[in-house]
Amino acid sequence: MRYYGMIATAIPQKIKTKSLAEQYGRVRAHSETICHHLETEDYVVQPVADVSPPKWHLGHTTWFWETFILQPHAADYRVFHDDFSFVFNSYYETVGRRVLRTDRGNLSRPTVTDVYRYRQYVDDAMRRFLADSEPTPELTALIELGLNHEQQHQELLISDIKYILGHNPLLPAIVMPLTEYAPEPATSAVSVREGIYAIGFREDETTENQFHFDNEEALHKVYLNEVTLAGNLITNAEYLQFMDAGGYHDFRLWLADGWAWVNATNAKAPLYWHKIDGQWHYYSFDGLVPVDPDAPVCHVCQFEADAFARWAGTRLPTEFEWETAAKSGQLSWGRRWEWTNSAYLPYPGFVTAAGAVGEYNGKFMSNQLVLRGGSIATPNSHSRATYRNFFQPDKQWQFTGIRVVK
Amino acid sequence: MRYYGMIATAIPQKIKTKSLAEQYGRVRAHSETICHHLETEDYVVQPVADVSPPKWHLGHTTWFWETFILQPHAADYRVFHDDFSFVFNSYYETVGRRVLRTDRGNLSRPTVTDVYRYRQYVDDAMRRFLADSEPTPELTALIELGLNHEQQHQELLISDIKYILGHNPLLPAIVMPLTEYAPEPATSAVSVREGIYAIGFREDETTENQFHFDNEEALHKVYLNEVTLAGNLITNAEYLQFMDAGGYHDFRLWLADGWAWVNATNAKAPLYWHKIDGQWHYYSFDGLVPVDPDAPVCHVCQFEADAFARWAGTRLPTEFEWETAAKSGQLSWGRRWEWTNSAYLPYPGFVTAAGAVGEYNGKFMSNQLVLRGGSIATPNSHSRATYRNFFQPDKQWQFTGIRVVK
Amino acid sequence: MRYYGMIATAIPQKIKTKSLAEQYGRVRAHSETICHHLETEDYVVQPVADVSPPKWHLGHTTWFWETFILQPHAADYRVFHDDFSFVFNSYYETVGRRVLRTDRGNLSRPTVTDVYRYRQYVDDAMRRFLADSEPTPELTALIELGLNHEQQHQELLISDIKYILGHNPLLPAIVMPLTEYAPEPATSAVSVREGIYAIGFREDETTENQFHFDNEEALHKVYLNEVTLAGNLITNAEYLQFMDAGGYHDFRLWLADGWAWVNATNAKAPLYWHKIDGQWHYYSFDGLVPVDPDAPVCHVCQFEADAFARWAGTRLPTEFEWETAAKSGQLSWGRRWEWTNSAYLPYPGFVTAAGAVGEYNGKFMSNQLVLRGGSIATPNSHSRATYRNFFQPDKQWQFTGIRVVK
Amino acid sequence: MRYYGMIATAIPQKIKTKSLAEQYGRVRAHSETICHHLETEDYVVQPVADVSPPKWHLGHTTWFWETFILQPHAADYRVFHDDFSFVFNSYYETVGRRVLRTDRGNLSRPTVTDVYRYRQYVDDAMRRFLADSEPTPELTALIELGLNHEQQHQELLISDIKYILGHNPLLPAIVMPLTEYAPEPATSAVSVREGIYAIGFREDETTENQFHFDNEEALHKVYLNEVTLAGNLITNAEYLQFMDAGGYHDFRLWLADGWAWVNATNAKAPLYWHKIDGQWHYYSFDGLVPVDPDAPVCHVCQFEADAFARWAGTRLPTEFEWETAAKSGQLSWGRRWEWTNSAYLPYPGFVTAAGAVGEYNGKFMSNQLVLRGGSIATPNSHSRATYRNFFQPDKQWQFTGIRVVK
Repeated sequence: MRYYGMIATAIPQKIKTKSLAEQYGRVRAHSETICHHLETEDYVVQPVADVSPPKWHLGHTTWFWETFILQPHAADYRVFHDDFSFVFNSYYETVGRRVLRTDRGNLSRPTVTDVYRYRQYVDDAMRRFLADSEPTPELTALIELGLNHEQQHQELLISDIKYILGHNPLLPAIVMPLTEYAPEPATSAVSVREGIYAIGFREDETTENQFHFDNEEALHKVYLNEVTLAGNLITNAEYLQFMDAGGYHDFRLWLADGWAWVNATNAKAPLYWHKIDGQWHYYSFDGLVPVDPDAPVCHVCQFEADAFARWAGTRLPTEFEWETAAKSGQLSWGRRWEWTNSAYLPYPGFVTAAGAVGEYNGKFMSNQLVLRGGSIATPNSHSRATYRNFFQPDKQWQFTGIRVVK
Repeated sequence: MRYYGMIATAIPQKIKTKSLAEQYGRVRAHSETICHHLETEDYVVQPVADVSPPKWHLGHTTWFWETFILQPHAADYRVFHDDFSFVFNSYYETVGRRVLRTDRGNLSRPTVTDVYRYRQYVDDAMRRFLADSEPTPELTALIELGLNHEQQHQELLISDIKYILGHNPLLPAIVMPLTEYAPEPATSAVSVREGIYAIGFREDETTENQFHFDNEEALHKVYLNEVTLAGNLITNAEYLQFMDAGGYHDFRLWLADGWAWVNATNAKAPLYWHKIDGQWHYYSFDGLVPVDPDAPVCHVCQFEADAFARWAGTRLPTEFEWETAAKSGQLSWGRRWEWTNSAYLPYPGFVTAAGAVGEYNGKFMSNQLVLRGGSIATPNSHSRATYRNFFQPDKQWQFTGIRVVK
Repeated sequence: MRYYGMIATAIPQKIKTKSLAEQYGRVRAHSETICHHLETEDYVVQPVADVSPPKWHLGHTTWFWETFILQPHAADYRVFHDDFSFVFNSYYETVGRRVLRTDRGNLSRPTVTDVYRYRQYVDDAMRRFLADSEPTPELTALIELGLNHEQQHQELLISDIKYILGHNPLLPAIVMPLTEYAPEPATSAVSVREGIYAIGFREDETTENQFHFDNEEALHKVYLNEVTLAGNLITNAEYLQFMDAGGYHDFRLWLADGWAWVNATNAKAPLYWHKIDGQWHYYSFDGLVPVDPDAPVCHVCQFEADAFARWAGTRLPTEFEWETAAKSGQLSWGRRWEWTNSAYLPYPGFVTAAGAVGEYNGKFMSNQLVLRGGSIATPNSHSRATYRNFFQPDKQWQFTGIRVVK
Repeated sequence: MRYYGMIATAIPQKIKTKSLAEQYGRVRAHSETICHHLETEDYVVQPVADVSPPKWHLGHTTWFWETFILQPHAADYRVFHDDFSFVFNSYYETVGRRVLRTDRGNLSRPTVTDVYRYRQYVDDAMRRFLADSEPTPELTALIELGLNHEQQHQELLISDIKYILGHNPLLPAIVMPLTEYAPEPATSAVSVREGIYAIGFREDETTENQFHFDNEEALHKVYLNEVTLAGNLITNAEYLQFMDAGGYHDFRLWLADGWAWVNATNAKAPLYWHKIDGQWHYYSFDGLVPVDPDAPVCHVCQFEADAFARWAGTRLPTEFEWETAAKSGQLSWGRRWEWTNSAYLPYPGFVTAAGAVGEYNGKFMSNQLVLRGGSIATPNSHSRATYRNFFQPDKQWQFTGIRVVK
């Protein structure tokens, strides 16, 4: 019942039967497809620290291939430019010094053309490398990690581009290969019975698609009470009821940190909402349009999701409840990342991988909450029942929504 | 096996057989005992936002009685001073506007003498009220909440006084009724078998001591894997090994937020440690003394506890593992608040109480971690197997320590 | 025509005929007189960085005598406490490290009693020193500097005490030896003819009172155009007209930095003004009283003075115009420090003194404006035609007022 | 003796004999010449608040023509885009709301191409307007102001481009039409005798070039003591002596604000200096080159200039000394903006112009210091004896240097 919103990604589930080279080509091409309609200037700016310039994403994902595959494994590979490691490293302390995250938008060079040349150069080397060699299982796993890493940045590319254009006073429209807003079909609620359930990724010998991140591993048991998850996400109409009832003005509905956030940001609606002549509009890739009451609410932070649920007399699910419902096959998901009320913490038995690629998921296990399910901006292979996305509770710029416990 | 470090508190477990009036008198007196050796000036300052001036604690706990017991329930009660509600409200948005938390140290008035007069005035009214009336069960519960609230502030009084004096360049000593540093007796590790365990406070008809906070309620089942908790807390000698091995300089040992904290604070040792002529000392209520290698390490934040555990090849327990071990009766605890790796989140079935007293524990369930066990500064009735203390992971000023999983 | 508002200071002009010991005694006693009615707690707090705790002023002025007179010159003098230099140094980088200015309010120790003991100890040593020795002219000059330094801190003591009490929600009244608000007698405007005038302190062999600061020295000529200074300071009634005319809402009246200050602070009136039931009140040492329309406006910053003058179609005088008018003997001044539109910069020929006492006036010659004349809180010997006071343009907490050019 | 460094600007002094249309064309073209070798990305970024994106400068100067000339005066003129006023207004509060200065670098739209289209559109309209009409003297003055305004932004364009490229880790070189570093010919010192001098712009009937800013007006007399100004600017070699003597480590050489600046910024050399293998280099438009000992030091702030002068046992000149020396015809200037020790304040008789163009110079007369003379980046018509440039004392990014009093 996974909803596939992002047609252009449509990487079929049997991807693994394709050669690594073919997969590499498709994933790499898709990053550029997302940026196809950008102006050069759109690639450069960083309006807030969380939002990286698109050219940085394109360079950083390329740097990953250069640093972790080509340099250690491809004979005679020469780096494209000595300083690019400094420019495009994100947070890997193992690999050396780097441009401060908040300074990414201060860099006019390398130019967008330079970045595309860099991509071309690395892609050529990767194609030669994949053609010439039969990668070991270890190396194959690393390449798959690289593909998944690039796909994660594809979703960030989309949300960051939206932020850049949606905070420009001209509010420009742009072609983006996804259906941003549409109502969900009505779906029945999903009940989970009290009992012991297995949480985490289970390797399955019958399918080929075994990729998963380290933070999904360590299958383990949890005990759940009986719970029923709503079949549908909260709609804009429902969220407007919360707003009209004074939801943003009643401290009793908010966590203390959430209330501080409301007051510090003067929040009165989800991100991208604008009240014009008494009517709520939102900024989408099509420009400013009236809020569609039937579409699932989007761009809410966890504080908002939590306050809405409290106002509605219910609560957000835990990530374990969500995963169990999803594994039942009865939950329809994939339109919005769904905030849970579970802190992002290691599963029992979680082990950090050695080396730089181990600096991946584990070190962020502090003050972040788990989101489950995937959004219309999520590449399909990143939307599975065990996938753990995570952000701080005040972040609104991802395609986030609300599902409540009935 | 609960360790009772704080002799002066020694409120016996049979406290409930005493009258409420007697309990009230003992608890109220103990707040003043803690402050007995302070200079007037020590009551006034607030060196950082977390540390409230002692006179504020004395006034705020008094305001609690006045606002929640006397004003609504005691006939003819007249408030001591109209402006004190503004001055001594802490975070209860329900009750009205209040002095910003960061401004508490800017107030020279009311004076310490005024605050003690306020205490006397409210104590007199409370004594009359308790003598004259037979409180309803509801009111009794509210009074018990007030007693426990004041006891929580007693521990904060101790840690705040230590911060105030320990950050004064004169590093003054002061008499404080507790044994701050002492080695633990060697204790065996405690194993928990895989299985289903009940977590939370269970009302027991055979004992009178039923008090607990709302966040401990909602007894529920969890599934645990087999685990063994160390019998003893990490000692200063063990922590020094981590420091000597370069623990504060190796980013691989730290969460990303933790490493940012190390760099922002330039942390090199636990709070109150000073290296003098090549020898580590710590500030205690007795003044500056050499670090005792055999005593449990104290005043570490969760980032430090987590990094230490990673360096030692192990991890911190979850709050569920800890509670289960404690309920087995084999765990010796009570010297240091023990950082767990569990986020402070509601138990399944958690319900917020109505009204202002509901603004108590639930609203802080964001970006805090659970600590278990109690410390040498904790009143005895706040040290039970189900008690959930909570602080942000960067806080060092409580009497916090480390217990690892074996 | 100097107005002597501060009766208690009344140090007669013939002070120099008194012995140094007598002067020392009177000045030192007056610092304590100012604090005579404080509560212990009032000595401790520092609500903003600019406002030092009164006990710090009392300690710092004492440290000056110990450091610059007793330690280098008094045989066998032993410092009162080794750490007090660290605690009570203000900004003398020459003399060593010091408590950060913003941390003065975090120190509960030394106690107020300790500080008074310190004063007693140093006073005893100073009296013995002055009795036993015949100071050289150089040392006499240094002692006179110390007396004037302490008098400067006396005015700061008064303005800082007012800030501490005037920002307490209880707005307590206190006895302070000065007449804070009173109308001026009507005085004629003072004209200065175009021409060359001498600016700066001229040593005069016929009077004994030759003390002045280094920044007043270097008598030099300036060329002035014809100008007429108002005989009276701007009154509260006149300032209210500016407020009623929307002065705080019209950006055209303000310097760019001033307009930014209005927006950042949300300023709507002078400091200490409160609108209660539609009527403006101000906080004075007598507590909250209605604004007296006839009294000179007080506690305005230079941005406000400048905006008022622009609104009134005029301007503030330069310090050279002011000094020339004052030297004519026809200007009545001394009730408010009068903001000029002159930057605080060295006179031609200004020379910084060698050693720590040279770290006095010169190093502050950046982004400050000159104030002239003295206030009702100014010791008389600090109110002379050549005296140059200086503060940043956004400071309101001194007893500052407005005199305009006609 | 004015030095003309910027060949490309070479607008002859007889410019006024040319038609306004011809002047307009030359000035407008020059703004684009400066940007001729930029990459699109270079136009977009804003690494610090002071440095505006080049496309903003190009748009803002165009907005000036549209707003102050075409809209009010050109019949049938239609604005290019309704939102551009919001985007390209700088600080004119009169004209309406505007993008916050610090957000200029967050705007990818309008694109660089859009901005050049905007320029073309406005230039076409201006040419038609200038061809069709005979401007009144008032309008001519306003057009001259617009030309000078655009020229001021040309110098900012150059310094901002340098900052953008010089803070990029790739340190790219770029073609820029100026000779950035060259030694000065040795020039004799210039003495000014004690006496009365006229300061300010004097309209001269015999020349056509009467343009000047409002802050230069109000010719008035000042009295100067005898003074001798160095014939040459301080060289890199001389500045290196100050550095080698520990100038950046000796608080006694610095103003208090300057010393705070040294500590906050960790300054150790002028802006753009890099020590590589023990040798000082600087970033120029040609890329990184060794420091030329004989060239005048560049990119120092006023704190550095002041500290250098104090170390050298001398001082900076006042703006009045400088202007008098310059008017003598014996001073050679124009290579570096020369910091004076004069605060930027109104001349006696200064009057702010009515309307938005009056929001030009007067409102910045707070906490800025006057610079005199012009630099190799200054259009020639902005380098005259009476010109008053002004910046805060901590700004290094202009082409600033040091001339001392002998």
